Amino acid sequence: MPKLILVRHGQSEWNLANRFTGWWDVDLTEKGVEEAIAAGWLLAERGVLPTYAFTSYQTRAIKTLNLALEACDRLWIPVVKDWRLNERHYGGLTGLDKQETRDRHGDEQVHVWRRSFDVPPPDLEPGSEYDLASDARYAGIDIPLAESLKLTIERVLPYWESDIRPVLASGETVIISAHGNSLRALVKHLSNISDEDITGLEIPTGQPIVYEFGDDLRPSGERYYLRDA
Amino acid sequence: MPKLILVRHGQSEWNLANRFTGWWDVDLTEKGVEEAIAAGWLLAERGVLPTYAFTSYQTRAIKTLNLALEACDRLWIPVVKDWRLNERHYGGLTGLDKQETRDRHGDEQVHVWRRSFDVPPPDLEPGSEYDLASDARYAGIDIPLAESLKLTIERVLPYWESDIRPVLASGETVIISAHGNSLRALVKHLSNISDEDITGLEIPTGQPIVYEFGDDLRPSGERYYLRDA
Repeated sequence: MPKLILVRHGQSEWNLANRFTGWWDVDLTEKGVEEAIAAGWLLAERGVLPTYAFTSYQTRAIKTLNLALEACDRLWIPVVKDWRLNERHYGGLTGLDKQETRDRHGDEQVHVWRRSFDVPPPDLEPGSEYDLASDARYAGIDIPLAESLKLTIERVLPYWESDIRPVLASGETVIISAHGNSLRALVKHLSNISDEDITGLEIPTGQPIVYEFGDDLRPSGERYYLRDA
Repeated sequence: MPKLILVRHGQSEWNLANRFTGWWDVDLTEKGVEEAIAAGWLLAERGVLPTYAFTSYQTRAIKTLNLALEACDRLWIPVVKDWRLNERHYGGLTGLDKQETRDRHGDEQVHVWRRSFDVPPPDLEPGSEYDLASDARYAGIDIPLAESLKLTIERVLPYWESDIRPVLASGETVIISAHGNSLRALVKHLSNISDEDITGLEIPTGQPIVYEFGDDLRPSGERYYLRDA
């Protein structure tokens, strides 16, 4: 039966520095590398071996995937990358230190930007140092200026339906290496979580989450952490 | 105009140990990792940036590709893996120490196995420790028992025509990370090298070789090493 494995990338340099990252492309830290390898070891140990992979256009998710696949000797499986699995775009907050942002705008405003379902942060200013207009990877893509979780979901779910679900339906064990908010989008959909509750759901880095599916390609039970299986 | 970049994987553990490897899956050495990263730096420095990648099913070629792509910030490009880019299958020689094999079978016989165009080595014995019949990556693939260079070419070139050439024709800068003999197959075809001469052509590890193509998708000049460009 089809299985889906979700992995949030390991610790990134800006997770560690406590900066808003979004679409900005930062690398994993040494701890992030270790988390990714440990995720692969866990897949091997539990015998939950992916046969098909999806990831975003962002280095931290791609490296997490490659390291995990290497650790479970699955480097050879197909890997498809798509920007629609990218992290939520943090707009004008990109690059800012989270504490500084709270000091400047107040805890409440920052909480709204981070945790409201449908309020996007301020737009990224065109020409800002975090403007990705000249990044070759996004050529031809309508890069958002800022995204709420709602807007993130609105580009993740169509991709899930068009590209990922058919692969699952063919019986593959699919792994998706992605980001806190693109994974929230999937978990909200698959576990039927409300708009209010999803914003508070924390997805830990480097911890494989598993869904098993029945014949009708509906989850046959609740998601679980592979470490607890 | 389309460009093709060929890279032979960096030094592997069995290159170092002087053992026949073929389809057996061995890792890169630390030197091999460094070669792969240096290849990516060279691509970045010369501004020859791949937009589409192909590699084999073998860890040493996939890791070489991933390390090189990371070093030139192209980890996000599409990567397609196919067994038809695998190394020549060394049959019953797989795993043997090259010097021991010469001691046992004589220099001349070993030279024939290594360097003749159409004489395959002895078949791999089914059930040998190097039998890949139970390796999930080759499920559904008719694994050869042994290959000459000629047999290797006979599976590489149809894949070139069916899968790689159309991508080049669409204007991409294609990188292929593969193996001494699968790359010989491509160089023989693209540079029109005779059966006699191709067996003596050494392709160095980790050194990007470039072909530029004209409108008709014929090489517009001879191949060159990017380091010399």
